[in-house]
Amino acid sequence: MDFNKISFRVRYAETDQMGVVYHGNYAQYLEMGRVEWLRQFGVSYKSMEENGVMLPVIFMRMNFKKSAVYDDLLSVHTKLKKMPSVKIEFEFEIFNEQDELLVEAEVALAFMDMKTNRPIKCPDYVLEAISAK
Amino acid sequence: MDFNKISFRVRYAETDQMGVVYHGNYAQYLEMGRVEWLRQFGVSYKSMEENGVMLPVIFMRMNFKKSAVYDDLLSVHTKLKKMPSVKIEFEFEIFNEQDELLVEAEVALAFMDMKTNRPIKCPDYVLEAISAK
Amino acid sequence: MDFNKISFRVRYAETDQMGVVYHGNYAQYLEMGRVEWLRQFGVSYKSMEENGVMLPVIFMRMNFKKSAVYDDLLSVHTKLKKMPSVKIEFEFEIFNEQDELLVEAEVALAFMDMKTNRPIKCPDYVLEAISAK
Amino acid sequence: MDFNKISFRVRYAETDQMGVVYHGNYAQYLEMGRVEWLRQFGVSYKSMEENGVMLPVIFMRMNFKKSAVYDDLLSVHTKLKKMPSVKIEFEFEIFNEQDELLVEAEVALAFMDMKTNRPIKCPDYVLEAISAK
Repeated sequence: MDFNKISFRVRYAETDQMGVVYHGNYAQYLEMGRVEWLRQFGVSYKSMEENGVMLPVIFMRMNFKKSAVYDDLLSVHTKLKKMPSVKIEFEFEIFNEQDELLVEAEVALAFMDMKTNRPIKCPDYVLEAISAK
Repeated sequence: MDFNKISFRVRYAETDQMGVVYHGNYAQYLEMGRVEWLRQFGVSYKSMEENGVMLPVIFMRMNFKKSAVYDDLLSVHTKLKKMPSVKIEFEFEIFNEQDELLVEAEVALAFMDMKTNRPIKCPDYVLEAISAK
Repeated sequence: MDFNKISFRVRYAETDQMGVVYHGNYAQYLEMGRVEWLRQFGVSYKSMEENGVMLPVIFMRMNFKKSAVYDDLLSVHTKLKKMPSVKIEFEFEIFNEQDELLVEAEVALAFMDMKTNRPIKCPDYVLEAISAK
Repeated sequence: MDFNKISFRVRYAETDQMGVVYHGNYAQYLEMGRVEWLRQFGVSYKSMEENGVMLPVIFMRMNFKKSAVYDDLLSVHTKLKKMPSVKIEFEFEIFNEQDELLVEAEVALAFMDMKTNRPIKCPDYVLEAISAK
């Protein structure tokens, strides 16, 4: 259950007049982190939805330690908290190029059947993909 | 075919580090303008989609004259360019509280059947609602 | 320390392909809530910044109970948690038109001197304005 | 004056309930395109601002041909229209992985002195960097 790391540059649009990344925009960075975390196991979130399972966020917590600025090359480190059941929980750390910790966060998502709109267990193929590594 | 006017305050999230509204965010203001333009005729864009017709944007042009700043009370003036056919075209002007013209814009949207994903003509009930005024 | 309530419609841009408001966008709704909470006491966040004090978010937690959909008329209820010191803490509840609780949230912001970029206490005029009510 | 190409994946947050990228979000893609176009000449837009020159967008036009969907690997091709003077003009084409043209666009930005807030000519070092290639 190691950290998976992605990197990208802060967009101008993501800053606010304080001259730093608007706090709400980090939600998108966390989303990118967990999508790539899944992809490393061969699991595409896009295909998951195409197969009728969606993953709405039910909980998000973010602690902001230091600001990110425009054009910063950020890294999101994503870690699974524990094996998923009806929900999947991630921990995140976001760093800048100087390896300073900017944000420490936690997100929980629920597995939902898109037809019935009811919670379900994590699909077996996802559990197998994650465990196989 | 008068202008329809809506007003709202600039959100902090909508500014960028230049200390003004990020230019891309005006697309949302135009969207709000035309949705309320339709609502004044008793036409809900939400119901239109629920009835299988969607209106993707096919063209957008914006001329930026002056910047909007945080907490500004903006007005969007929306005007129909001509009676809709397979597309519907709007003109917009955005003003601040001092009545300065900030943005002058134009947007064209296509009527699409959501089932076939093909262009269609403007639904009759929309044409009637618009003409009735 | 009653709840202050604001209302507004969900923008199309704020939805995602799940057909609901993207979870990250609620950060903007909370921002609007606390800005209007301050304004009712005659405190303008904009002027506060113009006078050299900024309020970066240092903590945000959101629990998502139910989804908001496009065109929903949402209400944000904002409540001060306790009298502000070096930080100011708010609690929020977001409801739809059917008075269903959609999101329950908490945000903490730090008072910062923009010149020194260091934490300061809540300005006296803010404390007085809040207490006077 | 060749095209400069960047690639990135569509974020979930960037989609709307039509199941495609919200048209307003393409403004950010164009911004990323021209920032990287500049960087290939050794010109950092961030440093340009730090040296007192900003580049507000004064005109934007987008023609939407086909939709981008979630997780698409998009490419933005950026091309300078002509040598910059008091403004700099770019042309853009956005493609998906199947090399389908999704958006064709044009953006003009003005060189502004951040101290005087008045238009200026394109800085010499930028002209030289661009011409040197």
